[in-house]
Amino acid sequence: MPSGSTRVAVCGASGYAGALCAALVERHPRLELTAITARSEAGRRHDSLYPRHRVAMELEHFDADRVGERAEAALVAYPHGASAPVVAALRERGLKVVDLSADFRLSRERYERYYQDHQAPELLAGAVYGLTELHRDELRGADLVAAPGCYPTAALLALWPLREVARDAVVDAKSGVSGAGREATDTTHFVSVTENVNAYKVDGHRHRAELEQELDERFPITFTPHLVPIDQGLLASCYVTADGLSGEDVRALFEDAYAGEPFVQMVSSPPGVRDVRETNRCAIHATVEPATGRVLVFAAIDNLWKGAASQAVQDLNLMLGLPETEGLA
Amino acid sequence: MPSGSTRVAVCGASGYAGALCAALVERHPRLELTAITARSEAGRRHDSLYPRHRVAMELEHFDADRVGERAEAALVAYPHGASAPVVAALRERGLKVVDLSADFRLSRERYERYYQDHQAPELLAGAVYGLTELHRDELRGADLVAAPGCYPTAALLALWPLREVARDAVVDAKSGVSGAGREATDTTHFVSVTENVNAYKVDGHRHRAELEQELDERFPITFTPHLVPIDQGLLASCYVTADGLSGEDVRALFEDAYAGEPFVQMVSSPPGVRDVRETNRCAIHATVEPATGRVLVFAAIDNLWKGAASQAVQDLNLMLGLPETEGLA
Amino acid sequence: MPSGSTRVAVCGASGYAGALCAALVERHPRLELTAITARSEAGRRHDSLYPRHRVAMELEHFDADRVGERAEAALVAYPHGASAPVVAALRERGLKVVDLSADFRLSRERYERYYQDHQAPELLAGAVYGLTELHRDELRGADLVAAPGCYPTAALLALWPLREVARDAVVDAKSGVSGAGREATDTTHFVSVTENVNAYKVDGHRHRAELEQELDERFPITFTPHLVPIDQGLLASCYVTADGLSGEDVRALFEDAYAGEPFVQMVSSPPGVRDVRETNRCAIHATVEPATGRVLVFAAIDNLWKGAASQAVQDLNLMLGLPETEGLA
Amino acid sequence: MPSGSTRVAVCGASGYAGALCAALVERHPRLELTAITARSEAGRRHDSLYPRHRVAMELEHFDADRVGERAEAALVAYPHGASAPVVAALRERGLKVVDLSADFRLSRERYERYYQDHQAPELLAGAVYGLTELHRDELRGADLVAAPGCYPTAALLALWPLREVARDAVVDAKSGVSGAGREATDTTHFVSVTENVNAYKVDGHRHRAELEQELDERFPITFTPHLVPIDQGLLASCYVTADGLSGEDVRALFEDAYAGEPFVQMVSSPPGVRDVRETNRCAIHATVEPATGRVLVFAAIDNLWKGAASQAVQDLNLMLGLPETEGLA
Repeated sequence: MPSGSTRVAVCGASGYAGALCAALVERHPRLELTAITARSEAGRRHDSLYPRHRVAMELEHFDADRVGERAEAALVAYPHGASAPVVAALRERGLKVVDLSADFRLSRERYERYYQDHQAPELLAGAVYGLTELHRDELRGADLVAAPGCYPTAALLALWPLREVARDAVVDAKSGVSGAGREATDTTHFVSVTENVNAYKVDGHRHRAELEQELDERFPITFTPHLVPIDQGLLASCYVTADGLSGEDVRALFEDAYAGEPFVQMVSSPPGVRDVRETNRCAIHATVEPATGRVLVFAAIDNLWKGAASQAVQDLNLMLGLPETEGLA
Repeated sequence: MPSGSTRVAVCGASGYAGALCAALVERHPRLELTAITARSEAGRRHDSLYPRHRVAMELEHFDADRVGERAEAALVAYPHGASAPVVAALRERGLKVVDLSADFRLSRERYERYYQDHQAPELLAGAVYGLTELHRDELRGADLVAAPGCYPTAALLALWPLREVARDAVVDAKSGVSGAGREATDTTHFVSVTENVNAYKVDGHRHRAELEQELDERFPITFTPHLVPIDQGLLASCYVTADGLSGEDVRALFEDAYAGEPFVQMVSSPPGVRDVRETNRCAIHATVEPATGRVLVFAAIDNLWKGAASQAVQDLNLMLGLPETEGLA
Repeated sequence: MPSGSTRVAVCGASGYAGALCAALVERHPRLELTAITARSEAGRRHDSLYPRHRVAMELEHFDADRVGERAEAALVAYPHGASAPVVAALRERGLKVVDLSADFRLSRERYERYYQDHQAPELLAGAVYGLTELHRDELRGADLVAAPGCYPTAALLALWPLREVARDAVVDAKSGVSGAGREATDTTHFVSVTENVNAYKVDGHRHRAELEQELDERFPITFTPHLVPIDQGLLASCYVTADGLSGEDVRALFEDAYAGEPFVQMVSSPPGVRDVRETNRCAIHATVEPATGRVLVFAAIDNLWKGAASQAVQDLNLMLGLPETEGLA
Repeated sequence: MPSGSTRVAVCGASGYAGALCAALVERHPRLELTAITARSEAGRRHDSLYPRHRVAMELEHFDADRVGERAEAALVAYPHGASAPVVAALRERGLKVVDLSADFRLSRERYERYYQDHQAPELLAGAVYGLTELHRDELRGADLVAAPGCYPTAALLALWPLREVARDAVVDAKSGVSGAGREATDTTHFVSVTENVNAYKVDGHRHRAELEQELDERFPITFTPHLVPIDQGLLASCYVTADGLSGEDVRALFEDAYAGEPFVQMVSSPPGVRDVRETNRCAIHATVEPATGRVLVFAAIDNLWKGAASQAVQDLNLMLGLPETEGLA
């Protein structure tokens, strides 16, 4: 390990996002992976669960003291509700934490409306929403960061440049199956998914809360997730009503918003999710539909990377004062 | 063959839709498949190209006289532009024709705006748009029917019950690759499609013309097709602004519109395209988004069946005075 | 229902194979579906679980008396071990039964070696192995038939014509995921399957027992199943050592064996599983490798159809004295 | 660029393997990508064809002088036949070359038997077969290396440790569609591939020549390739007759053969191709089938990586005296 590297634990490293966090930390030139924990797979080696990631370590039961002794920072990838107490225990021991659950993304009021009673509300004041492109300054030096949900990551990057001009938006999002997590269910059974496409949670997916909060409820948003038969990848197709904008106007808004962003790339035709597979990038195409004047924005990410694990590392880089792209290029 | 069966030719039977037309005609209890033609595969047996369809006949070059001698009706599945002259030649010889191309779907003015000069404008006056659920009475006894495009089939069935109340609609449609046809292209290469999702033709897909015509341009429609990694299947996710409708109101509109329809099925949750695979059915879920009051309609079809070949047979049944469901149940 | 139809129950109709049994019986012109039972989904409608099958009936808890009152025959699709008592109860009540589990496929000795203690050994003497092409005469009029496993169906049809000349065989089989059943497991999770291929149970899959029994252990057989990312379909690639056979010799053996078989089709190039998808057919290509003289046989079936449900109906047709192809063409 | 880096051209960088070569060279810490050429896509940017690879360079027409001025080494990824003249021209100008085609893999006699007249036979004497694990010493300092075919890479790694004991082998290989190349054909059309599996070229795939040559025709090999619906990945399932070997014997042979190999990994259960996706690794499981005593070996690679582009870089590392794993870990 190079001198000056930060010791990092990944808690919840048996799920898809947490497992990838471990792999990204391990190959990061300035971080040292010192502990990985899991609730259900403790005792198994990471590389027996995820051979491709090549992380030659054993998953442990979570013990805040033991983790605290071995790490200065942690990525926590537990389900919402289960995450808050773990995060609280690690913060008590002085670790910087990026939490990948919903537990620290929202105001208490909004969280309890969409999820459940909050287990560690005292930490909310210090938590920063980790969509780097929107909150970079706050992230530098933060001690607790909430990595955004996968859908909000793509949708917010698509809508943010239009926030002052939009009157209305429809977000039709398509996600790969890894977004549903590693649990084996009827929904994730291969036979249910292959040769199929469907919308789900049309009466309200909880990721809507992040859209509302970040955009300050400036305009109504219809948000509908769909499941498509792919492994990793998420496309947010956004249809925005905004009077009198030309294609040039729209492109200018996006170029202004994302000039110099290392991980947002404006592209000249609708991106496919393959174009960004296994990268921290978000590829965006923005245009105006000739027939209606409606603004169309298509934002593609890898739901496990920019939508979860690699964005968490991007956050951690900022929190630690490292170059934002370190370990992610 | 049963006495009373109608002899039918399928012209253009080497493409996906035409090949399925041949298979459906052959197993239809009241139709007799007497000729199949193709432009590029003449001389090959249908069952060597499509083993599963089990049509043990040889593809011929098209010859209007030879087809006219052997058939009272024809299904024509040539590309637009190529279809009109073939249809004209068959109509001259007295055959009833269902054309699966765009050539007879639109007014001349609209056709020439979206496609090209029309090759047989004199036939347009007699052509009926073959979306059965909207034009059943005109289809009975018609001599020339234009089977609708796959996208308009799903989108129109989704929007039709709302035509008097909608102020605005977004149609985000997802289609399987068979909709792109049998031609091998970069776009249809397995490696381009698998683990990918993308929008395409966002500056205007020509199927928009059918939406505008059938809905009489009552309200603006944003229409964006997407390619998803499935073989057959099409989902139209429709987002409709219509003030003050409750979920009950919406369901009532759809129940009224489609009561008794043999091939439209209202379902209580968003349908997957697998639910209607290899059927002539359209499964529709209509609801109101709690957060915004917007009407959401999800319509699933098999693009090659209800979106092309089986709908053409449904049309032919009506044209010939047969029960509408004959050969399709 | 036509007069003369036989009333049939399907027990275990919530799994993939049983659900398809119900659909096939319901659309069979000479059978009447009178009851469907399930262990875990009782109370649910079949068409809510399997919309495409369109079976508008409710799944019930199994009750032998109630089933016995309503049916003269039953298809039983329970897991091995669970099946035998159900079959025994139905046989006691006089029903003809096709069992899709392994419980009645093997001699008691062989069954108990490969599976477990037998729950109804008294019935084994009367049970016929339902690979129609090998046991047609015994099946006519039988009261209890064991539908073969999916792997043995394809492998036995591939190897049977060579049984007198083979000295050795390797069976490398590839199956779609539906063969693993409806249970949601790590193995059937979409993310585990997509973009993956692997062998499994290389130290001995229990379907080997059927190969040994039917071929009477005439020659050693290596048998290795693989999982491939498809829904339905099974390809058995068989490599047979048999001295001095020409391609002509091989083709003659197969033509002799399967002349007139309605559901076995010899094809002139290696079949794809798509060619037989959702049919009761087995497509076979047999040839001799020029470089080695080894006999290559490729047999493709749909694992849920000829490998399970439709073969069970084929069996039932024979048991009831109906035309073998009835309801399956 | 670090001082001491070698300037490298990639010729044929528009196909799948060549495009990946360019990406691997560009991110290699000791190589500098200075030119990329293509026959059909000259003038296009690499990153418009392959957005994910992020190679921000323009494809040029091949000109040996211009390439020779800008590079000390080249990776050539043209089709066989087209490659030899390009390689000859580059060798004349003093470049070290790794050729990914078949042109320099075989003796002239064998090449002309399996392929066509050789265009540069004078170069064959100096060409080294680039399966690193078998020819490492010859590769160090070589000037012309022929990267092996994808099938032989996996099959040879599976069979090599058994070469002294095998009496007979069956290689049943399964490849993803990228192995068929970027050309759009009926075979690579998504609709042909999805939900399908089939054998092909059962009368003799040309990769057999490499197996025969490397194994010196010590024992007969049956070799049958299959196409499976995945993008990248290749599994060679090998069935080897070798008298009297125990599982321990087999494992010892493999451990001996591959101890210390950085890219060959012996695994304790049959590997899935996902386990090695986008890596230069070959994962191998070797065991003995209890029922027959036959040796089973399963070798998984990524056909575009270890089966083509990354193995070419592995070769180049050795040719240039760099650490073998540089740029590949």
